Amino acid sequence: MNYFEESLKLHERSVGKVEVVSKIKVETRDDLSLAYSPGVAEPCRKIHENEENVYKYTSKGNLVAVVTDGTAVLGLGDIGPKAGMPVMEGKAILFKEFAGVDAFPICLDTKNVDEIVKTVKLISPGFGGINLEDIGAPRCFEIEERLKKELDIPVFHDDQHGTAIVVLAGLINALKLVGKKMKDLKVVVNGAGAAGTAIAKLLLSTGVKNLIACDKVGILYRGIENVDDAKKALAEVTNPDNIQGTMADALVGADVFIGVSAPGILKTEMVKTMNKDAIVFAMANPVPEIMPDEAKAAGVKVIGTGRSDFPNQINNVLVFPGVFRGALDVRAKEINEEMKIAAAYAIANIVKEEELSSENVIPFALDKTIALKVADAVAKAARETGVARI
Amino acid sequence: MNYFEESLKLHERSVGKVEVVSKIKVETRDDLSLAYSPGVAEPCRKIHENEENVYKYTSKGNLVAVVTDGTAVLGLGDIGPKAGMPVMEGKAILFKEFAGVDAFPICLDTKNVDEIVKTVKLISPGFGGINLEDIGAPRCFEIEERLKKELDIPVFHDDQHGTAIVVLAGLINALKLVGKKMKDLKVVVNGAGAAGTAIAKLLLSTGVKNLIACDKVGILYRGIENVDDAKKALAEVTNPDNIQGTMADALVGADVFIGVSAPGILKTEMVKTMNKDAIVFAMANPVPEIMPDEAKAAGVKVIGTGRSDFPNQINNVLVFPGVFRGALDVRAKEINEEMKIAAAYAIANIVKEEELSSENVIPFALDKTIALKVADAVAKAARETGVARI
Repeated sequence: MNYFEESLKLHERSVGKVEVVSKIKVETRDDLSLAYSPGVAEPCRKIHENEENVYKYTSKGNLVAVVTDGTAVLGLGDIGPKAGMPVMEGKAILFKEFAGVDAFPICLDTKNVDEIVKTVKLISPGFGGINLEDIGAPRCFEIEERLKKELDIPVFHDDQHGTAIVVLAGLINALKLVGKKMKDLKVVVNGAGAAGTAIAKLLLSTGVKNLIACDKVGILYRGIENVDDAKKALAEVTNPDNIQGTMADALVGADVFIGVSAPGILKTEMVKTMNKDAIVFAMANPVPEIMPDEAKAAGVKVIGTGRSDFPNQINNVLVFPGVFRGALDVRAKEINEEMKIAAAYAIANIVKEEELSSENVIPFALDKTIALKVADAVAKAARETGVARI
Repeated sequence: MNYFEESLKLHERSVGKVEVVSKIKVETRDDLSLAYSPGVAEPCRKIHENEENVYKYTSKGNLVAVVTDGTAVLGLGDIGPKAGMPVMEGKAILFKEFAGVDAFPICLDTKNVDEIVKTVKLISPGFGGINLEDIGAPRCFEIEERLKKELDIPVFHDDQHGTAIVVLAGLINALKLVGKKMKDLKVVVNGAGAAGTAIAKLLLSTGVKNLIACDKVGILYRGIENVDDAKKALAEVTNPDNIQGTMADALVGADVFIGVSAPGILKTEMVKTMNKDAIVFAMANPVPEIMPDEAKAAGVKVIGTGRSDFPNQINNVLVFPGVFRGALDVRAKEINEEMKIAAAYAIANIVKEEELSSENVIPFALDKTIALKVADAVAKAARETGVARI
């Protein structure tokens, strides 16, 4: 199937993908009087008396804004908010189909960090959560950080944390196969944008000690110049021996390579310098950093990619529906590290021990039972860390 | 039925009224590849090539933001954006149920005019139209005016124009009964807020010459002090003889009274000073300016109210679904006076000549065939005035 051509036809036929429908019927005069004036005054009054009632009488608690500025859409880059709309609609329908979350695309006509933060805050009263999407690095970091501080509803940049959580899930299962521990690993993350940075941080939260982040300039180290502040900050918490050099230098003796970078840049000869039972997650799209066959031939034990036509697909759809479902279910004030790690373990545990193999460390993305398991784990972690409100 | 109690139960049971659903199915790997990555890149690219394609491949062209700041919610006043949410959701579902428009509540956490204008502009790329709702006067005037100027999609403050259009529709039919003409009428509009001001302006656009607007301070006249600028501006275009005095003074010899003011303030003795075959639209809620029985006894020929338990209910649901349906259908750049007047005539014409009576100048609000007739008339007017883009 030619996905591009068929997708165009599908979008044209349906004229977009989201629809806003009523949960209740409006047919009689009484229906109208209850759903709208005069009856509707009563839930308004109750919310005015106590703001928390907004969760009881409105859709807020199940509504998520899928917010973009259109600056980093898929691999297409800065194509603007209107051109980003099909992705936001796609995300919205996946939220609904996989976890019953009502998500709505909000495409912003600005790239200015202050304006984005301000706008999201101003529209937040009607939403139970904010999913940031396809906003370029490093702006995405500041936007998310400020919104998390200033809002009392979950804010989650899926390109960062969604990806990080699936990678962690895959790594948890891959480690079972090779019999290694997080704390003993040497991990190389190549590509220090939104996803790479979040992956690095989540792995550090989960117990990895020796993690080296690389970018186009090579290894990130303390004292590096010519990179943005976000990358300098990443260098502060990674690369414990503060080594310098190229990605190839970093890879010598590494147990894990995680690529969110560019097609074909992981070469056979580099893989051969890695530690025994190497694990590779090569997520460049549509062509990964190394093709699975080539990686296997070079001795890699487990390889995952972003593609659905190879085993171990790293797909965020495993994450965001369940994470928000869980967070919304307990009215979590935020989505914290513990909730993300709980989501990763829940995803990893979908793969039963007897099914675990180098071709199967990440479950099938379209299994609609996953989201609810993730949700339960996330809700539990929210309660345990005191961010749940119910 | 106790509408308040039952409405509360209904809202609690359904936990709000809107739901965001998918127009397409997402069950197989192919479905996912078409609705989302990688296929979705193609509609994104097409929109990036030509922005107008956003109407072809996304839901934008059928999406309307129902925007409030919660400052003038029903008769409840400034209860805030969260407490306004049930009304916005109600509006959204009426848009869908009556005209297939996908409307979504946007409740803003600010009362600042600049911030509201800015926010609506910034979220506009994903919407085909903006319905302003329950925003207090005089702020609503500036907000609408600025947004109309700065956006290329329809912006419509329903509390103003929706009400004005139904009143005009009712007046058109009432005049058929009493055999009077717009240009010969003396009209008194009492209550110079959002609705009153819009009614006055629309009647002037339709040919009324002698219209006197009153407010709490009495008749608005050129040179009046102690009222806001919007009311001073209204005095500039109304009250041709520049008379001063009370509402009672204005009513002497008047053919029409239109009240968007306070319960019970139109007294029998005032009505008796009006012209023969007087027409009264008394829209204070829930208790009108004069009760229909009392008005009839005092010699009023036609009386309409906001209530569904009396004849001639002035209900905006006759207007906004069809007006937006028509505007969206032709991708109108705006909703202009001609489109509003066309909507009013379309609504008036629903009542067939043989059905027309003093008890039936305005059609039944729940007749779902009305919206499409209104839409056709609005679309035609948009084309004729050059604001239609297709």
